[in-house]
Amino acid sequence: MQYIIGIDLGGTFIKLGLLNSRYQIKDRVVLDTTDFSGKGALIQGIADFIISFISEHNLQRKDILGVGLGLPGPIDSQGGCVRYLPNIPGWNNVPLRSILSEKIKLPVFIDNDANLMTLAEYKIGAARGSANAVCITLGTGVGGGLIIQGKLYRGSTFTAGEVGHMPINEDGPLCNCHGHACLERYIGNRRILSYAKEVFKNDISLERLSALANKGNAKAKKVWQDIGKKTGIALTSVVNLLNPDCIVIGGGVANAGKILFDSIEDTIKSRAMATQAQHVKIAKAELGDDGGIIGAAILVKQKGLA
Amino acid sequence: MQYIIGIDLGGTFIKLGLLNSRYQIKDRVVLDTTDFSGKGALIQGIADFIISFISEHNLQRKDILGVGLGLPGPIDSQGGCVRYLPNIPGWNNVPLRSILSEKIKLPVFIDNDANLMTLAEYKIGAARGSANAVCITLGTGVGGGLIIQGKLYRGSTFTAGEVGHMPINEDGPLCNCHGHACLERYIGNRRILSYAKEVFKNDISLERLSALANKGNAKAKKVWQDIGKKTGIALTSVVNLLNPDCIVIGGGVANAGKILFDSIEDTIKSRAMATQAQHVKIAKAELGDDGGIIGAAILVKQKGLA
Repeated sequence: MQYIIGIDLGGTFIKLGLLNSRYQIKDRVVLDTTDFSGKGALIQGIADFIISFISEHNLQRKDILGVGLGLPGPIDSQGGCVRYLPNIPGWNNVPLRSILSEKIKLPVFIDNDANLMTLAEYKIGAARGSANAVCITLGTGVGGGLIIQGKLYRGSTFTAGEVGHMPINEDGPLCNCHGHACLERYIGNRRILSYAKEVFKNDISLERLSALANKGNAKAKKVWQDIGKKTGIALTSVVNLLNPDCIVIGGGVANAGKILFDSIEDTIKSRAMATQAQHVKIAKAELGDDGGIIGAAILVKQKGLA
Repeated sequence: MQYIIGIDLGGTFIKLGLLNSRYQIKDRVVLDTTDFSGKGALIQGIADFIISFISEHNLQRKDILGVGLGLPGPIDSQGGCVRYLPNIPGWNNVPLRSILSEKIKLPVFIDNDANLMTLAEYKIGAARGSANAVCITLGTGVGGGLIIQGKLYRGSTFTAGEVGHMPINEDGPLCNCHGHACLERYIGNRRILSYAKEVFKNDISLERLSALANKGNAKAKKVWQDIGKKTGIALTSVVNLLNPDCIVIGGGVANAGKILFDSIEDTIKSRAMATQAQHVKIAKAELGDDGGIIGAAILVKQKGLA
């Protein structure tokens, strides 16, 4: 039996998982990204870690089908090249697949992290069976990925799926992306915190905000309903444009629970066109934080042809 | 040499074209849809017309590769079935392909009219060479079609591409589709006329509004710039979500010219994410009113596998 190594590289952490061919995670490790000074050190660190991870598990290279790696930015998954990483400086057109593969002498496949989460939810999570699906993650930012006709759709320059940067108003606050009134500018988690602080005249955590809403606190409910409405409006555009089978919602903010989901679903069902609205299923992501490494493993098993 | 018959069925007119295999229109005829009372009479009328059209051109059935037909509503193009036509009552789940094919003894293929316009622009018009393209028509309504990875993308229930029903504000006027603040609700041609009437305190045609704008009239320019901005905001969502190579804009309203196009393009280029905005080309439709029948002919030549 061959194993697969799935890696999810973020701005602060690198998560590594050892998966079997049914995508069950047999072991996992988390490294601190900031322990490595710069790109070269980070790549070498990942390579060293993979090699020691393999030997610590008494495995040999022949026991490993390959390594899959998700990164937070536009990735040419066919060419194996990282175009750039918006939140990790110094990565521009890095042929990471060949560099890493050379170091570890194993097949390597790379892709965008939101794409891999989407792939995982499509293959074994909440979007399975949906030939056309949209997955979004609600967190510090709002990421997304698209399955079109049963395949990951990456876009012409590997930047498709940016649901977080769909404007939901003609005019509105400036976003980090230089756009205005982007969904993320209203519902990124720091925005929710500052909105909640305004309402409660005090700092309040997202967990507390959810707990209050679940107990029926009117102010907390109002905050989540408003966040849900804004999310639902961007998704109304997605539903009318793409007529998908399924929308999967994950990420830390999605843990707010039923009040948020009901508001998202009510908005879509009442505002999207009847045929599209009746057909689309709104579901919570099933794989949680593991979606990234599971998607990376699926990419390896499909030899990059996801 | 075989010919193809392309038909574009609208709420008021039916356009028929005789095309050669290079999609050149050799002859064309327009019928009045309202001359036929009801669905059965209309289908029989089309069948009769095709048969007389063939004999008038001294052709025989063997000279005709097939008949392609575009209709204004959701069409199951694989099953050859009209789901419904929002503006033509009485059409519900009509297996038009088999009915018509039986009557005329020729292969028939059917699809949504905006999809066929999109297919035509992709194969021989402004979107050729663009594997990922979005085509929109600006007229009474705002229609759209999507090319994804070189193929028409129809959506899970044949209703993808509804760019006109993407909301551009959280709140806003009620649309015919029961949504709020849909793009079409602001830029459908009757909306532009009533907006212009407000500005000029008088009825003014779209042609006059364009002519005034082109002569530098500040009020007329402002109307078109605002219409362009609203269109550009919906397209910013499309660009960030789909990362297409190309957006093609057609329909009667698109004849307003450079002021409108500049405003659309400026909005997309300044508000969409840098990578997507730099890559996408904004182009005027090249095939004009013929896009529908040309697309219908292409569908026939591809045996419905577009």
